[in-house]
Amino acid sequence: MQCFFVHITCRLGRTYEVAAKLADREIASEIHSISGEYDLLAKFYLAPGEDVGRFIAENLHDVDGVERTVTTITFKAF
Amino acid sequence: MQCFFVHITCRLGRTYEVAAKLADREIASEIHSISGEYDLLAKFYLAPGEDVGRFIAENLHDVDGVERTVTTITFKAF
Amino acid sequence: MQCFFVHITCRLGRTYEVAAKLADREIASEIHSISGEYDLLAKFYLAPGEDVGRFIAENLHDVDGVERTVTTITFKAF
Amino acid sequence: MQCFFVHITCRLGRTYEVAAKLADREIASEIHSISGEYDLLAKFYLAPGEDVGRFIAENLHDVDGVERTVTTITFKAF
Amino acid sequence: MQCFFVHITCRLGRTYEVAAKLADREIASEIHSISGEYDLLAKFYLAPGEDVGRFIAENLHDVDGVERTVTTITFKAF
Amino acid sequence: MQCFFVHITCRLGRTYEVAAKLADREIASEIHSISGEYDLLAKFYLAPGEDVGRFIAENLHDVDGVERTVTTITFKAF
Amino acid sequence: MQCFFVHITCRLGRTYEVAAKLADREIASEIHSISGEYDLLAKFYLAPGEDVGRFIAENLHDVDGVERTVTTITFKAF
Amino acid sequence: MQCFFVHITCRLGRTYEVAAKLADREIASEIHSISGEYDLLAKFYLAPGEDVGRFIAENLHDVDGVERTVTTITFKAF
Amino acid sequence: MQCFFVHITCRLGRTYEVAAKLADREIASEIHSISGEYDLLAKFYLAPGEDVGRFIAENLHDVDGVERTVTTITFKAF
Amino acid sequence: MQCFFVHITCRLGRTYEVAAKLADREIASEIHSISGEYDLLAKFYLAPGEDVGRFIAENLHDVDGVERTVTTITFKAF
Repeated sequence: MQCFFVHITCRLGRTYEVAAKLADREIASEIHSISGEYDLLAKFYLAPGEDVGRFIAENLHDVDGVERTVTTITFKAF
Repeated sequence: MQCFFVHITCRLGRTYEVAAKLADREIASEIHSISGEYDLLAKFYLAPGEDVGRFIAENLHDVDGVERTVTTITFKAF
Repeated sequence: MQCFFVHITCRLGRTYEVAAKLADREIASEIHSISGEYDLLAKFYLAPGEDVGRFIAENLHDVDGVERTVTTITFKAF
Repeated sequence: MQCFFVHITCRLGRTYEVAAKLADREIASEIHSISGEYDLLAKFYLAPGEDVGRFIAENLHDVDGVERTVTTITFKAF
Repeated sequence: MQCFFVHITCRLGRTYEVAAKLADREIASEIHSISGEYDLLAKFYLAPGEDVGRFIAENLHDVDGVERTVTTITFKAF
Repeated sequence: MQCFFVHITCRLGRTYEVAAKLADREIASEIHSISGEYDLLAKFYLAPGEDVGRFIAENLHDVDGVERTVTTITFKAF
Repeated sequence: MQCFFVHITCRLGRTYEVAAKLADREIASEIHSISGEYDLLAKFYLAPGEDVGRFIAENLHDVDGVERTVTTITFKAF
Repeated sequence: MQCFFVHITCRLGRTYEVAAKLADREIASEIHSISGEYDLLAKFYLAPGEDVGRFIAENLHDVDGVERTVTTITFKAF
Repeated sequence: MQCFFVHITCRLGRTYEVAAKLADREIASEIHSISGEYDLLAKFYLAPGEDVGRFIAENLHDVDGVERTVTTITFKAF
Repeated sequence: MQCFFVHITCRLGRTYEVAAKLADREIASEIHSISGEYDLLAKFYLAPGEDVGRFIAENLHDVDGVERTVTTITFKAF
């Protein structure tokens, strides 16, 4: 499985609503509200060969309240 | 108690109105107007296990005039 | 349990040696090599009330090859 | 009293030693180890008219293990 | 031929639509959706002496959904 | 095949020596010297499931003259 | 007297109008149009104990054409 | 003569229109479309003592399609 | 007279020594220790046509303890 | 001819020595000492098809006192 993280910035005051919507979709392995500049950090697994970019566009960018996402790919888990 | 700081950017000219509203709510341990890029620096205490992210969303992000917040968690006081 | 993430920058070419040393210590819940500016992303759990700052200083900063760390605290898992 | 905050970056693994030395000097009102890019956040009070820049140079910059400081002045406490 | 790369930021959720429109125009040598801060990375070849700036203004900036582009020129392929 | 790009910063004046060494290894699909902040942009293909992080550590970070690398993963080619 | 500087960003083409309005108020010790990222740099003096934050909110942020300000406090004049 | 450079960011797709308007005014010594983050780089000469800030506000900021400018002053030509 | 400002970063703990050396030279119109990222902000006046770059190289960069300077030119005083 | 600009950062106090050396080589069309973060801005012309990256490595990076360069390519002169 391909594992990746997405840092998510939400519109002001919408963080928990966005997190709840993502949780309802049951597509994320983990969703955390976090300290610092971003609002949420989510971890996802996709089957090898699946398209991470399309997944994000179709499953994260369409959630009302999401403002910006930055994707980090993992190469290996130790 | 969990202690954390929040740097707050306000809409132009709204800094003291935001600070006054926060002060009225009596939720912050300290609120300062400050030099530099941010307008306000506030310190909060929550009971252990309380959700800092929800607290910020419900008590800071709903204040009219707040534009952006960045949260810093403290680990230990010396 | 308190869950937090640490982004780690390693000295050039030392990333996998650092990751292996961290894995040997069995203190991290997850260690990933990652795309982008940082080399590693690790997830840790500490008992409530334990000192995250001391943990990082004593268990991550003493690993030869680590150059810089940035800590992100999670507030809530959805 | 003039209140100001100083964000402190320490040399790798020296954060708690720096914090302890500062605490021993009994010059800070608060010292916290923190999440994010900086290692420590300290709050100080000086008598009106005292020189904040000289205070930092003489009391913080001479502490072995300190690498960089950024000073934020408070204008008003609400 | 002059080879150059363009990093493209798209409006939220429009990345694959933009990529498809670019692909339909058959002007890019390669178009990739990517990790990190940008959404797409495209490679183009122009005949020597052709105007890269005009090409981008006329062929990329007019695509609905494109928000910002950053151009990198290649000097030599090894 | 997994396709990824690496932006490479070299030590002053070592860019073409680094590019030549990389070319000699015949591991990159493309190597370009480029405009802007970075010195080289290289494209690589790995078999699915191969570890990009280890590849970079073992094949790029060991090249004398390389100072820093930033890795961008591609998700889909259009 | 407390001396401080304010870097001011104005809306496009409004710099000299903003500077003239500030000059008319006769509150600044100096106002300069400047090179670089900001449009204006102004120096102010307040009586000791006066609130710099309130002064900026009431005297600078209410000037039509001001977009953003960053405040730098001086500690000592040599 | 005082020589200075201005980096110009234009609204998406308006770069060449802005450049043409500037060229029509015959006030710039050079106008280039460029690689990287900015769209145009222009060089100007003013008589000694002329006000660079006013020149930019009146001759560049009023051009429709200009979004932001950053000014660099030259001290000496070698 | 040409008026310009220089932001100065000093080596840790050397700020007041640098400021004193600059004051002894009697070349600056003003020298302030300041809040924020830089240590000192100095204002200088040169006769029209004098070379600001050479002045900085010969009078500021040779002061032991100076680490970096950023120069801002003023266009007009209001 | 291919026209490009190079921003040059020099080691502290070496700016005019670097500029003089570059001027002696008679390879630059223009060399300016400048305001802001960089020390020098130079303009070069190369014959079409000549390698800008190699030119910079061989003619700029070998000048003692140069610390870093950033290259901007021009596409079209208006």
